[in-house]
Amino acid sequence: MSDETRADGRTPQQLRPVTIERGWSSQAEGSALISFGGTRVLCTASFTPGVPRWLAGRGTGWVTAEYSMLPRSTNERMQRESVRGKIGGRTHEISRLIGRSLRAVIDTKALGENTIVIDCDVLQADGGTRTASITGAYVALADAIEWARSEGHIARKAQPLRDSVAAVSVGIVGTTPMTDLAYVEDSSAETDMNVVVTGSGDFVEVQGTAEGVPFNRAELDGLLDLALTSASELAEIQRSVLAEGR
Amino acid sequence: MSDETRADGRTPQQLRPVTIERGWSSQAEGSALISFGGTRVLCTASFTPGVPRWLAGRGTGWVTAEYSMLPRSTNERMQRESVRGKIGGRTHEISRLIGRSLRAVIDTKALGENTIVIDCDVLQADGGTRTASITGAYVALADAIEWARSEGHIARKAQPLRDSVAAVSVGIVGTTPMTDLAYVEDSSAETDMNVVVTGSGDFVEVQGTAEGVPFNRAELDGLLDLALTSASELAEIQRSVLAEGR
Amino acid sequence: MSDETRADGRTPQQLRPVTIERGWSSQAEGSALISFGGTRVLCTASFTPGVPRWLAGRGTGWVTAEYSMLPRSTNERMQRESVRGKIGGRTHEISRLIGRSLRAVIDTKALGENTIVIDCDVLQADGGTRTASITGAYVALADAIEWARSEGHIARKAQPLRDSVAAVSVGIVGTTPMTDLAYVEDSSAETDMNVVVTGSGDFVEVQGTAEGVPFNRAELDGLLDLALTSASELAEIQRSVLAEGR
Amino acid sequence: MSDETRADGRTPQQLRPVTIERGWSSQAEGSALISFGGTRVLCTASFTPGVPRWLAGRGTGWVTAEYSMLPRSTNERMQRESVRGKIGGRTHEISRLIGRSLRAVIDTKALGENTIVIDCDVLQADGGTRTASITGAYVALADAIEWARSEGHIARKAQPLRDSVAAVSVGIVGTTPMTDLAYVEDSSAETDMNVVVTGSGDFVEVQGTAEGVPFNRAELDGLLDLALTSASELAEIQRSVLAEGR
Amino acid sequence: MSDETRADGRTPQQLRPVTIERGWSSQAEGSALISFGGTRVLCTASFTPGVPRWLAGRGTGWVTAEYSMLPRSTNERMQRESVRGKIGGRTHEISRLIGRSLRAVIDTKALGENTIVIDCDVLQADGGTRTASITGAYVALADAIEWARSEGHIARKAQPLRDSVAAVSVGIVGTTPMTDLAYVEDSSAETDMNVVVTGSGDFVEVQGTAEGVPFNRAELDGLLDLALTSASELAEIQRSVLAEGR
Amino acid sequence: MSDETRADGRTPQQLRPVTIERGWSSQAEGSALISFGGTRVLCTASFTPGVPRWLAGRGTGWVTAEYSMLPRSTNERMQRESVRGKIGGRTHEISRLIGRSLRAVIDTKALGENTIVIDCDVLQADGGTRTASITGAYVALADAIEWARSEGHIARKAQPLRDSVAAVSVGIVGTTPMTDLAYVEDSSAETDMNVVVTGSGDFVEVQGTAEGVPFNRAELDGLLDLALTSASELAEIQRSVLAEGR
Repeated sequence: MSDETRADGRTPQQLRPVTIERGWSSQAEGSALISFGGTRVLCTASFTPGVPRWLAGRGTGWVTAEYSMLPRSTNERMQRESVRGKIGGRTHEISRLIGRSLRAVIDTKALGENTIVIDCDVLQADGGTRTASITGAYVALADAIEWARSEGHIARKAQPLRDSVAAVSVGIVGTTPMTDLAYVEDSSAETDMNVVVTGSGDFVEVQGTAEGVPFNRAELDGLLDLALTSASELAEIQRSVLAEGR
Repeated sequence: MSDETRADGRTPQQLRPVTIERGWSSQAEGSALISFGGTRVLCTASFTPGVPRWLAGRGTGWVTAEYSMLPRSTNERMQRESVRGKIGGRTHEISRLIGRSLRAVIDTKALGENTIVIDCDVLQADGGTRTASITGAYVALADAIEWARSEGHIARKAQPLRDSVAAVSVGIVGTTPMTDLAYVEDSSAETDMNVVVTGSGDFVEVQGTAEGVPFNRAELDGLLDLALTSASELAEIQRSVLAEGR
Repeated sequence: MSDETRADGRTPQQLRPVTIERGWSSQAEGSALISFGGTRVLCTASFTPGVPRWLAGRGTGWVTAEYSMLPRSTNERMQRESVRGKIGGRTHEISRLIGRSLRAVIDTKALGENTIVIDCDVLQADGGTRTASITGAYVALADAIEWARSEGHIARKAQPLRDSVAAVSVGIVGTTPMTDLAYVEDSSAETDMNVVVTGSGDFVEVQGTAEGVPFNRAELDGLLDLALTSASELAEIQRSVLAEGR
Repeated sequence: MSDETRADGRTPQQLRPVTIERGWSSQAEGSALISFGGTRVLCTASFTPGVPRWLAGRGTGWVTAEYSMLPRSTNERMQRESVRGKIGGRTHEISRLIGRSLRAVIDTKALGENTIVIDCDVLQADGGTRTASITGAYVALADAIEWARSEGHIARKAQPLRDSVAAVSVGIVGTTPMTDLAYVEDSSAETDMNVVVTGSGDFVEVQGTAEGVPFNRAELDGLLDLALTSASELAEIQRSVLAEGR
Repeated sequence: MSDETRADGRTPQQLRPVTIERGWSSQAEGSALISFGGTRVLCTASFTPGVPRWLAGRGTGWVTAEYSMLPRSTNERMQRESVRGKIGGRTHEISRLIGRSLRAVIDTKALGENTIVIDCDVLQADGGTRTASITGAYVALADAIEWARSEGHIARKAQPLRDSVAAVSVGIVGTTPMTDLAYVEDSSAETDMNVVVTGSGDFVEVQGTAEGVPFNRAELDGLLDLALTSASELAEIQRSVLAEGR
Repeated sequence: MSDETRADGRTPQQLRPVTIERGWSSQAEGSALISFGGTRVLCTASFTPGVPRWLAGRGTGWVTAEYSMLPRSTNERMQRESVRGKIGGRTHEISRLIGRSLRAVIDTKALGENTIVIDCDVLQADGGTRTASITGAYVALADAIEWARSEGHIARKAQPLRDSVAAVSVGIVGTTPMTDLAYVEDSSAETDMNVVVTGSGDFVEVQGTAEGVPFNRAELDGLLDLALTSASELAEIQRSVLAEGR
C-alpha cells in the first residue's frame, strides 16, 4: 500500500480525527455527536416499551434507524425532503443500512418487547456520513440499552448487545486504496466501498461499487484488508468512550 | 410584577442563559448555534446570487426561512415530516414567522438580486424554539451578508440590514407574567405571547394567544412591557456576539 | 382617529355591511353564510357523537376547524390544494387560528364526549376572510350545539358556550388606523392586525404584523382600541341573528 | 312510462325545480349558482389569455374543468381531498366528464389561444351533482366567452360556442324509469345513467351503469328517450337565463 | 354496416385475434394473460378470506380491481404513477369500471365473507386495454373462485358467479361503425363507446363519448348492435377457455 | 464446496434454468423477458434523443433504470406503490443498483447526447429479482443501442457498450455457499450477497449482508468465487442470445 500523503496530510491508512460526544442530548435515552473530521452526525436513540403491532407477542424487540441530512449540511443547500414531500432513494438506502447494521449485533430476544429508534441527523457533511452514522449510532444504542436496564425495562442480566459495530468507507483514489474518504476523495474515487464490521472483526455488510472502471479481485482484497484495520481502530474508540462513566 | 422564583430559579423577568456560537458550520455562509437554556437551534444562512423567477428583474433580493425539529429534539420522539410526507401546520406557521421577522429588518433593494435562505433546525427543544430561532437567525443572516459583501456579491457601501431583530416568548403562568418560558411553563401558561422586536424597540410581530381564559387589556399591556425589556437584553447579546471577529 | 373616507365610502372606524344567513345548508347541524362586504364565507358545523381516540374517556369534547378558499374566490384563479397534493402554510395557519378561537369560548366538559368540526369555505374573497370565518363559525357552532341539545346529545342544562367570539382585522393604511380592511386596503397596509375578541370584550388572539416598517407602542395601542370597538359591534350582530328563531 | 308519484311529489318524467343564478361571483369572468332541487353547485369560469405550453402555437384554445365537493355538502362530513393529499377516483372521473362535455360544444379554433378553466364546487349535494355541474358550467362558460369578446380577447365575429350542452341523470327505480334522481332515488336505483346532450338533441356522453341487475336493450331505450326529453327542458332553461341581460 | 377493410385487414365487424393464457402466474389464485391483437394484459386474481372492516359481519364478499399500465407498454414511455406520487384520473376511472363490471356478475352473498382483488397490468397497449382487462379479469376471477371452492373457502354448492362478463370498444371511424378499435383507429374515431355485456346479453355498462361531433340516436343504436354481437363472440371464447382443464 | 442437492434438485453451484426472450415488446426499442426459474422480469429499454437538462451540452448520454414489482408477482399480494403514494426504500435501492450496473459498462461519450431508460417490471417473483433484472436489462440495453445505431442516432462506429454485465445472488444457506437463491433459500440464508460482474470478470458491485450471524473473511472469499463462476455462465447465455438475429 502506498504511503503518499493526502490533501489533509493523512496517510492512506489513516482515519480522520474521530470524536464522540456521548449524551449530547438531554432528551434522548441515548445520544452521541460523532465527528469523522468535518463530518458531524447527531445520533439519538429513542427507547419505547412495546413493539410495532406486526411483531407483538413474540417476545422479541425491534431496532430501526432513520438517516437525514440538514439542508445546509452540504456545500450547496439541498431542498428538505419534507418540503419535496418524499424521501429520496439515497436516504432510504442509508436508513436501511444503518438499521440492518445495528440489528446484526442485537439479540432481539434479550431486548424483550421493546423498540429502539435511532435517528442519525447529519449536521455537517464531508464524506463518510453513513459510516459515521453507524459508528455513532452504536454508542447511542448502547447507552439507551443501559438506560433501559437501569429503568427496569430490560432484565438486569440480559445482554441485548452481542458485539459492537462500526463502519468505514474505503476506496481506490487514483490507484491507491485509502481509508475514511473525505468528500473530495470520495468524489474522485474509482471504487467506493462501505464496510460494516463487528468488534470481533466479522463482516456485517460489504458494499463495493465501481464508480469508474470495474475492479478486480486483487483490488477488492486490498480494500477489505484496509477496511478491517480501520474498523478495529473505530471499535477501540467506541470501547474507550463507553468505558467512561456516562 | 411578582418576584417569586421559578422551577429553574429564575425571577419572572429573567431570561434563561443565552449562548450564541457563531460560525458553527463550516459549510454555510453564515451560521449560529443558539441556546436559550435547554433549547438549542442550529441556524444556517445560505446565500445564492440571483432571485426566484417571480422576483427577477426588479433589483430586489429575497430572504426566506425554514424551521424544523429533529425527531428526538423533544421528550417523546416525533415522526419526521419527510416520513409523513407533509409538513405540519405548526412548522409552516413558524417558518413563515421567521421569514417575516427577518424581512422586516432587511432592505431588499440594498440586498440586490440575491437570495438568502435561513434554516433553523431545532436540535433540542425546551420551550421558545421559535423565538430562539429568530434571535439566532439574525446572527446567521448578518454573517451571510458580511460574507456576501467580502465576496463582492453586495456593494461595499450597501446596508441591507436596517436594524437587528430578536424575539422572546412571554406568558401569564398562574397570575404572574413571566419571560422566556421553558417548556413546563409554556404548557401551563394561561396566555402565551411571542413578540418580535427590532433593536430600536419597535414591534415586528405580536402574537398573543389565550390558552385558557381570555386575557384583558391590562394583562396584555403587562406582557408587552415585559417583552420589550427582554428583547432589548437579547439585542445586546446579539450586538456583543457580532462585535467579535468572526 | 382620522375621519377621512375610504375607497368604498366608509369612515376608518366603520365595518363593511355584515350579513349572516343562518341555516344556509340543509345538510349541516349548524351553518351560516356570512358576508363582510364582498367577502363571503360558508361556515358549516358538523356534530358527531364521540371524540378522536387520543381524547376518549376523559369526558371532554373537541372542536376543530378547517379553512379553505375556492380556487376562483380570488381575482386570479389559484390552484386547488387537493390538486397540488398539499395544504399551504397560510391555510394551515388560518385553520388553526379558527379552531383556537372557538375553543377559547367552549367549555369542553359541558360539551361532553362530542366532536364538532367547523368548515369555513371562502366562496368569494375581498379581505378579512379569516375574521369573517371566525365570526360566522361562531354562529354555526352555536346552532350545532342547539341541535345537539335538542337531539339529546348534550344535557339540557349544559352550557358548552361560555361566551361568544368574533374577529376583526385592523391596520394602519398610510398613517390612519382603519377597521375591517378590504383587499385593496390590506394590500397597502403598513401594519395588519387580526384580533379575536369575546363577547365580554376580552382577547383570545392578537396577531399584529408589520408589513412595512415596524410599529411602535402607541400605534399598537390605537389599533387595539379600534379592534375592541369593532368586535363589540360584531358581537351585537351575532346576538341579534341568534335571537331569531332558527 | 309510469305516472306514480315520487317521495317529493314529482312524476317520473319531472325535473326538480331548477334555478340558475348568473353572475353570482363578482370575481370570475363567468359564474352561475345552479340548483337542481337540494343540489347546489357554484360554477365559475376563469378566462386567461394564452394556452398551456403543450398547446401553444396551434391557434387553438383550451377548456378544462375541476369538480369538488365541500366537505359538508353531504349528509355526513367527508374528509377534504386536500387533507387526504390526493384526489379520489370519483372526483377525477367527474372533472374529466365535465371538461369533455364542454369541449364537445366548443370550437377551439374560434376560441383562439385562450384558456378557460371551469370550477364546479358542490355547496350542497342531493343527487345529480355532476349533471347540475355540467348544466351550470355551460352558463358560466357562455358568460366568460361574452366577457372575453367584450374585452377584445376573442374576435367580435368568432363563435366559439357551437351549441349549448346540458346533462341529466335518469335511472330505473324499482321498475320505473325516472328522471333527475334525488339522492335517495339514486341510492336505490337498479340502473343509473348520466346523459349529456347538446341543445340540438345529439349525444355527447352516455354513461349507463347497472347498479343491481344488468339492464336489457328495451330498458336502455326507455332511459334514452326520457333523458332526451329532460335535456331539452334544461336547454330551454339555459336559453332563457342567458337571454336576460347579464 | 360497411364491409370496407381496415389497416390490419379486418372487416368492421371483426375482432382482432383474441388469446387467453389461463394460469399464467404460478403465484395468484387465478390469472390470465389476455391478448386483443397487440394489446396484452396480465390479469391476476388474489383471493383472501375475510373482507374489509367496513363490510365485516354482513355475510357478503367483496370484489375490487386495479388497473395499471407498464411505463413502456405504450409507444412513448410514460412516467410511472408511483414516481409521480399519485394515480391519474384515467387509471382511477378504468379501475373503477373493471370493479363494477365484475361485481355485476358476482353474487356477493354466495361468495361469503371473502375478498378478491383483480389486478390488470397492461404489458403492451394497442387500444382496448380496458375492454381486454375486463374480459381477461373474468377468467382470472372464475379460476380464483374455483380455487377457493377447492380449498373449502367457498361452499361446494355456492354459485358466486351469476353470469360471465366481457367488454368491447366500438366506435365510428369516419362514418363506419367498427368493433374492437386498435390504437390508430381509436385515435381517429369520432365516437368511442365501451360496452360491458353479460354472457346472456344484458348491459352492465354503456359508456359512449363523442370525441369529435356529437352523435345522434341512430348512430348510437348502430354501435349498440355491433357491441352486442362482438360481446357474444368474446363470451364464447371465455366459455371455451374455461371449459379446458386448468 | 458441498454437493448436497437443493429443494429443486440443483447442486449448490448450479443456476436455475435461465431463459431470455428478446424483443418481447413490439413497443420498446429494446426488450427482454428474462426468467431465472420462477422469477420472470420484463425488461424494456426506451431510447430518446437528448438528455436531461442538467446534463445537456456535455456530449454525454444518460442511462437510468426503474424497478417495480407487480402487486401479485409475490405469494401474497402487495399494495401498489402508486396507491400508497410513495416508492419504498427497497424499490429505490434496486432501481439505483440496476442503473449503476448498466452505467458501469456504458461509454457515455460514445452514446452521445441520448437517454436510455430501462424498466424492469417483475411479473413473477421467486428470489433473485434484482439479479435477473440486471441480466435482462443488459440485453434490452444492447438491443436499444443497436436500434439507435440503425436509426442513425448513434454513429455507426461508436461502441457505447464497453462490456456486458450480469448479476447473481449467492448466499450461505445453513453452512453451504449456494448460487442463484430461490425465494425459500433466500429467506433462510445466513448471508446474502448480490454480485454484479462484467463479461470480462471484473466486479461492478458487491453487496453482502449478514442476515443472521456476521460472516468471516473465508466465507466472503468462498461466496465471491462462486459468484464469479455463475456470472460467467450468465455472460455466456447473454452472448448466445444476442448472437441470434433479432
